[in-house]
Amino acid sequence: MIKKEIRVVGIDDGPFNKFKNKQVLVVGVVMRGGLFVDGILSTKVNVDGSNATDKIIKMINKCKFKPQLQCIFLNGIAVAGFNVIDVQKLNKKTKIPAVVVIRTNPDIEKIKETLIKIKQKNKIKLIEKAGEVIQIEDIFVQLTGIDLEKARKILKIVCTRSLLPEALRLAHIIAAGIVTGESKGRA
Amino acid sequence: MIKKEIRVVGIDDGPFNKFKNKQVLVVGVVMRGGLFVDGILSTKVNVDGSNATDKIIKMINKCKFKPQLQCIFLNGIAVAGFNVIDVQKLNKKTKIPAVVVIRTNPDIEKIKETLIKIKQKNKIKLIEKAGEVIQIEDIFVQLTGIDLEKARKILKIVCTRSLLPEALRLAHIIAAGIVTGESKGRA
Repeated sequence: MIKKEIRVVGIDDGPFNKFKNKQVLVVGVVMRGGLFVDGILSTKVNVDGSNATDKIIKMINKCKFKPQLQCIFLNGIAVAGFNVIDVQKLNKKTKIPAVVVIRTNPDIEKIKETLIKIKQKNKIKLIEKAGEVIQIEDIFVQLTGIDLEKARKILKIVCTRSLLPEALRLAHIIAAGIVTGESKGRA
Repeated sequence: MIKKEIRVVGIDDGPFNKFKNKQVLVVGVVMRGGLFVDGILSTKVNVDGSNATDKIIKMINKCKFKPQLQCIFLNGIAVAGFNVIDVQKLNKKTKIPAVVVIRTNPDIEKIKETLIKIKQKNKIKLIEKAGEVIQIEDIFVQLTGIDLEKARKILKIVCTRSLLPEALRLAHIIAAGIVTGESKGRA
């Protein structure tokens, strides 16, 4: 039985111009279930860099909500372009299950091709380590430190306003609204 | 009869160091009633400056939610220190009622003294123009373009999670979370 007020954090990055910006805003929204916002976290990571994993681990581990957090939702496996998150390390260092949420089944082959092209082949391993892409209802997920049955139950509680966990929808519109002055669309 | 899904915007500024920062982040949270976040707006204003009114008018007037907005909530009459908002102008230029929300009955005399001390006496007029401070339940408000009865009804709908309109509570924790990396307290 999972509590309706289960504490989760949803993480997404803001928009950026890869020719102009060196750093990108990353926002974490801490919620109880899919309704009440408890707090907002933020950090900055390098465009196409390799520091997202450590920055996000630090952001979560130092926050006051940490002891209550039961699940981390990521909007895709990378932020700030190709700053790919090592989900296994994120799970290990925070001791919190991590769920990568993907709205459309990603073209992994194309991503791998790009990573080879931009000479960041080492990141292919991180994508593979994030595990199998599984469909749950109308979204796709990659699970680390949590089984499919539990992930399904948590998603049922936290996806209150859209197909996505509400914490992820909010992280998306907050990051966009802060960076551009107005959030567009609905995540 | 006021709809449960009435669109409102709550505006608050982020924390700042008046010796270091020249500009301060101002966040607007657009909500339907007190539950659903529709969008996030943001702008920057000068510490102790005089541009908050125009910046906030522009932020609201250019946003896509504008046609639906029924009420603007401000967390106090000033942002970024003594960047006092001309609430009558805000109301006139946006054609939206404005409600200044104050958590504790403010010491207007002390504020006036400070404004005289920092040679910004002209801002005293703006504070006086914002109208009488009225207590509604456990908060205080100043109303422009809206009567007490209607303000009371809207507050009943939008104060879902605390004494404050939820859009204001969220604007506060978002601005703080973005500026400092983690929101503290509950607005």
